[in-house]
Amino acid sequence: MEKIRKIILSENEMPRQWYNIQADMPNKPLPPLNPATHKPVGPEDLAAVFPMELIKQEVSTERYIDIPDEVLDLYRIFRPSPLFRAFNLEKALGTKSKIYYKYEGGNYSGSHKANTAIAQAYYNKAEGVRRITTETGAGQWGSAMSFACHHFGLELVVFMVRVSFDQKPGRKLLMNTYNAKVIPSPSTMTAAGRSVLEQDPDSPGSLGIAISEAMEVAIQDPYTKYSLGSVLNHVILHQTIIGQEALIQMEKAGDYPDVVIGCFGGGSNFSGIAFPFLREKLLNGKDIRLVTVEPASCPKLTKGKFMYDFGDTAGMTPLLPMYSLGHNFIPDKIHAGGLRYHGAGVLVSQLLKDGFIEAKAKLQRECFEAGVLFARTEGILPAPESNYAIAGALDEARKADLEGVSKTILFNLSGHGHFDISAYEKYFENNLPDHELSSEEIDKSIANANLPNLM
Amino acid sequence: MEKIRKIILSENEMPRQWYNIQADMPNKPLPPLNPATHKPVGPEDLAAVFPMELIKQEVSTERYIDIPDEVLDLYRIFRPSPLFRAFNLEKALGTKSKIYYKYEGGNYSGSHKANTAIAQAYYNKAEGVRRITTETGAGQWGSAMSFACHHFGLELVVFMVRVSFDQKPGRKLLMNTYNAKVIPSPSTMTAAGRSVLEQDPDSPGSLGIAISEAMEVAIQDPYTKYSLGSVLNHVILHQTIIGQEALIQMEKAGDYPDVVIGCFGGGSNFSGIAFPFLREKLLNGKDIRLVTVEPASCPKLTKGKFMYDFGDTAGMTPLLPMYSLGHNFIPDKIHAGGLRYHGAGVLVSQLLKDGFIEAKAKLQRECFEAGVLFARTEGILPAPESNYAIAGALDEARKADLEGVSKTILFNLSGHGHFDISAYEKYFENNLPDHELSSEEIDKSIANANLPNLM
Repeated sequence: MEKIRKIILSENEMPRQWYNIQADMPNKPLPPLNPATHKPVGPEDLAAVFPMELIKQEVSTERYIDIPDEVLDLYRIFRPSPLFRAFNLEKALGTKSKIYYKYEGGNYSGSHKANTAIAQAYYNKAEGVRRITTETGAGQWGSAMSFACHHFGLELVVFMVRVSFDQKPGRKLLMNTYNAKVIPSPSTMTAAGRSVLEQDPDSPGSLGIAISEAMEVAIQDPYTKYSLGSVLNHVILHQTIIGQEALIQMEKAGDYPDVVIGCFGGGSNFSGIAFPFLREKLLNGKDIRLVTVEPASCPKLTKGKFMYDFGDTAGMTPLLPMYSLGHNFIPDKIHAGGLRYHGAGVLVSQLLKDGFIEAKAKLQRECFEAGVLFARTEGILPAPESNYAIAGALDEARKADLEGVSKTILFNLSGHGHFDISAYEKYFENNLPDHELSSEEIDKSIANANLPNLM
Repeated sequence: MEKIRKIILSENEMPRQWYNIQADMPNKPLPPLNPATHKPVGPEDLAAVFPMELIKQEVSTERYIDIPDEVLDLYRIFRPSPLFRAFNLEKALGTKSKIYYKYEGGNYSGSHKANTAIAQAYYNKAEGVRRITTETGAGQWGSAMSFACHHFGLELVVFMVRVSFDQKPGRKLLMNTYNAKVIPSPSTMTAAGRSVLEQDPDSPGSLGIAISEAMEVAIQDPYTKYSLGSVLNHVILHQTIIGQEALIQMEKAGDYPDVVIGCFGGGSNFSGIAFPFLREKLLNGKDIRLVTVEPASCPKLTKGKFMYDFGDTAGMTPLLPMYSLGHNFIPDKIHAGGLRYHGAGVLVSQLLKDGFIEAKAKLQRECFEAGVLFARTEGILPAPESNYAIAGALDEARKADLEGVSKTILFNLSGHGHFDISAYEKYFENNLPDHELSSEEIDKSIANANLPNLM
């Protein structure tokens, strides 16, 4: 019998609802707090920043939320995305396990970020917004928003973390091609940026700083809103289409994963694939493990503290209950720019605390090694971020082989690495400095955040 | 009713045979000639360069040739490729016509080149070859061969045209990641390269020169063969899977093209999509136009001479009956590196001469303008080469609108432009020098080729 390498779905098979895990969490997430009053923030507190429909999604406890027709229509230029069986990779490993991956890099943005970009641009447009500001790390999120905003007739200004701006010049040019304006962050355009530059004129930037800058610009104009590419509940919600599709595809493959793996920055690609499977565990008792893989140099889930912290560096967001390294933590300049974030989304944080998911951390060199093996066997050049998920999948396969068992492993290949190719050059040059963050460094960073204990 | 944006096929629907147009050409192509004797070359003359199975395909007149199982199996990591209806582009144009495109950039190589790379690597491996040499322009072909050779356990050495080597550094790194060795051409490694460098130490190189270098290295070692990414009949043959799929997909869409369009370098992506439709015209009387679009700075089909010429600059190949600008013609440094070739494949040349296909030429600026419109509407960033096909499709739509009719237009989107993004920067900077080659320049170049008249 011939091997079927990929399970594809037609556009008519595409799910028409996102899945909201807030409906099914045994312990609901703690509320975001106003940093001045320490009281829970209400929808009105967020109205200067986000359109009302997204604020409603942020707090909704409905299990399913309909995807608007306009969003479904644009999803169709690239969704449903394929689910691959990694036969070549399995053969190279000599593993008894089966490895599947959902590939989210086949769209215009080169990553899963398009799933929420299109939804966010749509809801903003529907409420009369004219301009959006946002941050981007490696540039995948910025690219995703650039096309989405152009499609819906919105202007876009992107604050791009400077280290990624310098490492990945192609990403800026791609955003320009989609008609967006891109500014390296920290910039002199905002008070938040100027403050960072005063302390360190050579600051490599961070997602936290770029968020502060984008928010600062947004709140100055009623027709400008801010948009975030990960972390928040509504972003996670939009990404669940990944897992919703994967469930159908695994069924078509006649298989079911023992473990689902995603790399971890703020939580959106991991949650997107994992939460629908977690629903099956919570509601239908399906046995499954859900594993995040984060950089050892930015280990909020494995070594951070569960606490109330800001989502951005300048402290403009509400205080969020999350695992964090402290909001002014500046991660190493690893090439997985999308994973250089100090905190973890509220939903993932609560679920990790409650033992529903697992977290592990890895050094980037091992992840690039996994990525090169993947490229040479499966063909697709992975994003540096996605390499963490691949490395996690290899761990699971090797462990199963040592134990003499066969597992079914599913990971999210969140994006391609075409604009990150110089990172691979550094790998071959053996020039990927990185380190495992120590407890002392973490304690210092958290103390430096100077936050009240609100737990 | 909801719009279906893409027609996809399952792996089981993938065609299992390539289509060989030599079976159905009213006038068969003239034979290649030995440059010394001016007698037709036989299979044995090519045996030092190509494996026997590819030589057989080069001269076969069988209508269909089975795709080997090993090739089908690897095709499945990315084939069948999707056929899109360009609804967003149509809307932006305000056209009454329907525009479809077959997208060949969704695979590891980012272009259609993977279709023949996998086949060529397979046949070489099957005949005991250990190492392959090849040329590449913009790097798509070299990337395609890199992964294919690694998969089948072959070494690969790629001579990359220097201007593209400098313009597109990411492509070299991608080939390295797939484990290939890449050398800028002209190089000092071969007599052919040294000869060019003696005359012009700053030579930008050309596909013709790179072919000479790769062939020179190959013929020195019995376990090394040479591989070509376009032009030759067996390459065209492998690419017909594009059109074979497109025929099924257009039928599923309930439509049939009035015109099929491809950009033109050596002929492989155009022929790949067009020849199966030409078969339907020749055998079943289906009305259709087949249009090539080439650079005005390298206009072999629109302004070149139909003559016997060499496929490479140093004159190592047999003499081929083709439209050519002269084998030592050095094209402008346009960013569509894959279109910088002096000649046209033998099959396309004969069919153009016989009036079965049409040719037009365009300046690169207009093609980039079309590419940016395409990116901003359909999402996919096209390769600079593919922009010529898009510009050709826009011409057809606009012409139909002027005439008050609706046409069904199909073009081949041969690849993505992720590694060509700096070319888009030049477009936005209004820095894309280019010129329409004059009759005087062409006469001079052809005289400079110094060839006997053998027609």
